[in-house]
Amino acid sequence: MNPTHLTGPILVLGSGLLGASIGLGLRAHGIDVVVSDPSPSAQAVAVDIGAGRALDAAQDLSPELVVVAAPPDVTASVVAGALQRYPSAVVVDIASVKVAVATELAEILGPDRQGMLERYVGTHPMAGREKSGPVAALGELFNSMPWVLCPSDVSSKHAVKVAHALAIDLNAVVFRFTPDEHDAAVALVSHLPQVMSSLVASRLQETPPHALSLAGNGLRDVTRIAASDPALWVQILGANAPKLLEIMQDVRADLDRLINTLRAPTAPGARLDLAQLMAEGNAGQTRIPGKHGGPAQQYTWLTVLVDDKPGQIARLLTEIGHIGVNVEDLRMDHSAGLQVGMVEISVLPSKRARLVEDLTERGWKVIL
Amino acid sequence: MNPTHLTGPILVLGSGLLGASIGLGLRAHGIDVVVSDPSPSAQAVAVDIGAGRALDAAQDLSPELVVVAAPPDVTASVVAGALQRYPSAVVVDIASVKVAVATELAEILGPDRQGMLERYVGTHPMAGREKSGPVAALGELFNSMPWVLCPSDVSSKHAVKVAHALAIDLNAVVFRFTPDEHDAAVALVSHLPQVMSSLVASRLQETPPHALSLAGNGLRDVTRIAASDPALWVQILGANAPKLLEIMQDVRADLDRLINTLRAPTAPGARLDLAQLMAEGNAGQTRIPGKHGGPAQQYTWLTVLVDDKPGQIARLLTEIGHIGVNVEDLRMDHSAGLQVGMVEISVLPSKRARLVEDLTERGWKVIL
Repeated sequence: MNPTHLTGPILVLGSGLLGASIGLGLRAHGIDVVVSDPSPSAQAVAVDIGAGRALDAAQDLSPELVVVAAPPDVTASVVAGALQRYPSAVVVDIASVKVAVATELAEILGPDRQGMLERYVGTHPMAGREKSGPVAALGELFNSMPWVLCPSDVSSKHAVKVAHALAIDLNAVVFRFTPDEHDAAVALVSHLPQVMSSLVASRLQETPPHALSLAGNGLRDVTRIAASDPALWVQILGANAPKLLEIMQDVRADLDRLINTLRAPTAPGARLDLAQLMAEGNAGQTRIPGKHGGPAQQYTWLTVLVDDKPGQIARLLTEIGHIGVNVEDLRMDHSAGLQVGMVEISVLPSKRARLVEDLTERGWKVIL
Repeated sequence: MNPTHLTGPILVLGSGLLGASIGLGLRAHGIDVVVSDPSPSAQAVAVDIGAGRALDAAQDLSPELVVVAAPPDVTASVVAGALQRYPSAVVVDIASVKVAVATELAEILGPDRQGMLERYVGTHPMAGREKSGPVAALGELFNSMPWVLCPSDVSSKHAVKVAHALAIDLNAVVFRFTPDEHDAAVALVSHLPQVMSSLVASRLQETPPHALSLAGNGLRDVTRIAASDPALWVQILGANAPKLLEIMQDVRADLDRLINTLRAPTAPGARLDLAQLMAEGNAGQTRIPGKHGGPAQQYTWLTVLVDDKPGQIARLLTEIGHIGVNVEDLRMDHSAGLQVGMVEISVLPSKRARLVEDLTERGWKVIL
C-alpha cells in the first residue's frame, strides 16, 4: 500500500506517555492535533508540551482520525464512544492486546451498530518505556519501532489507509497481523518473557545480600524487565490470558520434566534431559531476529578491555569510527569490585578481522 | 587477611579457557607456571600462547600450588590425584559447584587419607565466557570479577592463604562462602536465570518468523544466556541439583498460581494475583546490586536519540566525557527498521540534571 499522510484534525483521547507522544509527533508535521484526557492535569501537561490543543466541548470538531490512547481496560468503551460521537472519523486504538478489545467493542455496540466497525482499526505501536505520563512523552518515541495494524474483516480500505498513515507519519515500521495472530505473537515475544522475568526476580526477595553480591550479567539481563509497571501489566496479562495460558502450560510441562530430572540427577537419561533443555534453548534463541529486523545472529561479538574512567569508551568508539566500522550493538560488563570493564561490541562479520587488527595495533586489549 | 603473593611454581591441570587464562595471568607476574592437559593439542596451544611450560613427566616438580581446572565431572578425581602426587602442594579447584566436588573427593580419598584435605580449598572464579578453549584465554579474564573461596572445616590457614593469593594475583575480588552457602547462592543468581532463560527460548523453536519480527529488547535480554554451552551446563545443573530443585519447586508453585489465574482472569481476586506476581518481581529486582558491587539502583538512566551511523555514539560519549560525566553503563535499543536508535545511559543521580542540560544545549535529543 502506498502510504498517504494525515491531514487532520486528529483527536487523541488519552494523553499519557503514548497519547502525548503521538500528539507531539504529529504536531511536528504541522498537523492539527486535539488532545483530551479525563485527568485535567494530564491534559494540561500534554497541551503545555505542545502535544496538541485542548478539546473544547463547546466547539464542533470533525476529526479525520480519533486515536484512542486509553488504558487497555477502558479502550473498548472509549472506542465505542468515539465511533458514535464522530460519525465520519476513522477510529484506532493502541492497546497492546487486540482480540479482547475487539470482542468487548462488538458487545458494547450491539447488533444494530456493528456497521460502525468499518471505521475502526485496532493497532499496537510497540514502543513502551519504563517511564510513563505525558512528561515522558517524545515525538520520536515511535521512530523505527514496530507498529502493528490489526484490521478486522469489516475494516474499510479507507480506515486501514488512515491507520497506516498514522504509523508512517510517526516513522514507525508497519506490520499487518490479524488480531488473533497479534495476540499470539505478543504473548510469546512480550508477555512470556515478562512473566518469566518476574518469576525469577521474585525468588530474590528473601535472598541474603552476600548471595546477591555474586550476581552477574546473566541475572541482570534476565530480570531487567521485572521492573515493569504492575498496574499496566495486570491489564495486559488479564486481557491476553487465553493466549498466554497456552504458552505457560507448555512452560510448566518443560519445568515439570526438569524438576523430575533434578530429583534424580544420576538416574539413566538425566544428563540427556538436561542437555535437551539447554539445546532447545539454544535452538530457540538463535531464531530471534537481529537489530533492524535483520536475520538472527547477523553480527559477531568481540570484547575489549577498558579502564572505567570518563572518556575511555568514547575513545574506543572514536577510534572504531576512524577505522570506519559501525558498532551495531554495545554491552558493558557489570562486574563487582575493581574499576576495569569489558566492553562487548558487535560488528558485521566482514569487518571483524580488520577491526581486531587495527584496535590491537592501537594498543587495545581485544578478547577474541 | 593480608594478601600475600604466589611464588611458584604453579601447576595448572587443565588448559581450557579458565586454566590457560590463569596461566597467562600468573605468567604476567613472572611466576613459573606448568600446564598440563589430557588433550595434547590443548596443552600445546596453552604453551604456545604463553600460559606456561609443558609438564615434563620425567622431571621432578614440587609445586607451591596445583590449580585443578578440569571439567566439573572429573574435578574431584583430579584433585585427589594431585593431593597424592604432590604431598607438599596446596590444591584448589575452580569448579562452579562446591558441595558435590567436596563430597566426591572425600569418598575417593577414603577414611585413611582424609588428612590430605587440609591442603585442599574449593574455589569458584565467576568469569565465564561464551567462548571456550585455550585460544580464548586471557590473563585479564578475572580482573574485577568475583572469586569465591569455599574452605572446608579442615582446610589449613596456609592453604586458604595460598588460594587467596591466587585470586589476588589475578586481580579478582575475593569472597568467602561455605561450600553450602556458595551452591545455594549460585543456584539462585546463576543456575535459576540460566534455566528460565532456556525455558523461554525453547518456546521460540516453533514460532512463525512474522511473530518473531516483533521481538524487542525484553525478549533479547531474557534469552541472551539461553545461548550457553549445553555440555558444561549439564554438568553444573546435575552437580547442583538439590539446591536448584528447591528453587524450581518454588518457581513452579508461583507458576501454578499464575496458570490458575489465567484460567479465570475475570474471577474475583484474579487482578490481585497478577498484581502480586508483578509486584514481587519488582521487589526482587530492586535487590540486585549495581555495578562494581555498589548498592542496587545506584545509577539513574536517561535515553538519547542517535543516528545509527559510524561515530555517532562515539560523538555522544566524547561530549559526555567533555562534560565530565562518567557513563556507568550503556545500552543500545535494538529496533526493527529505520536507522535511528535510542542509547540508554546510566549515570550517578547527582550528575543527571547537568548532563541533560548540557547535552540538550549541544543539540542532542534527550528523553527524560
